[in-house]
Amino acid sequence: MFVIDPRLEASSIFLVDLALCQARLQADARWPWIVLIPRRAGLGELEELEPHDLETLMGEILLAGRVVRALGEVLGFGVEKLNVGALGNVVAQLHVHVVGRRGDDPAWPGPVWGFGAAVDYPAASMPVILDLAPKAFRACARYFD
Amino acid sequence: MFVIDPRLEASSIFLVDLALCQARLQADARWPWIVLIPRRAGLGELEELEPHDLETLMGEILLAGRVVRALGEVLGFGVEKLNVGALGNVVAQLHVHVVGRRGDDPAWPGPVWGFGAAVDYPAASMPVILDLAPKAFRACARYFD
Repeated sequence: MFVIDPRLEASSIFLVDLALCQARLQADARWPWIVLIPRRAGLGELEELEPHDLETLMGEILLAGRVVRALGEVLGFGVEKLNVGALGNVVAQLHVHVVGRRGDDPAWPGPVWGFGAAVDYPAASMPVILDLAPKAFRACARYFD
Repeated sequence: MFVIDPRLEASSIFLVDLALCQARLQADARWPWIVLIPRRAGLGELEELEPHDLETLMGEILLAGRVVRALGEVLGFGVEKLNVGALGNVVAQLHVHVVGRRGDDPAWPGPVWGFGAAVDYPAASMPVILDLAPKAFRACARYFD
């Protein structure tokens, strides 16, 4: 049975269930940042996904990249570069980060993982994000077809 | 025309040309680490790849992961986790890192990118690696079929 690791759950907020992954917003206002968690039980590495799921994952990574750009616009963070990473050193459950970066962000040009402490989103911005993000996923998915 | 950024070229060593990517060994003995560079001109983001190339890239990422594990065995570095990342903050040309990690490596559990200074491989180990790595790519590719 697919269950999300409690640490992933605590550090992120549900956005939408895609064909393969649950897409969640990383609870860190420093970067527009989506975490994709394949909704399959017991996965740790990309190679453990079925070939069809791997293909779906790649599509969902691109989709998340577009939504990260859209979120960046709403949040006044102009995304200049996407960073995509599947690490899993802290939480072993397979998950993929899609992070919007720009040349003057706090960790640039280093990676975001393990950099300083997360900054909460202002409570007032959460309803806007939670309203916008699923719509952006749908709009961008249409754009892909 | 496809040209490898001189900084990528300087920090890594040619291993083999795959269907899509040139696979190179990161010149850093701290981790078994392969860099995949899609042999297409002018790419910066994953989304700029053609759909067919994206699918090939995913296969080559899995393949590189197996070779990283094999390199790790030869180098006495038991790979416990693969880290896969497409960042491009320093060198904009699209490239994907596939890195072998273990719980007692110097940067664990943080990311390897930007961590300390690269450590040269002992000169004596290079012929072994350069002989083994292309063979490992072929052997692992067969394993996939």
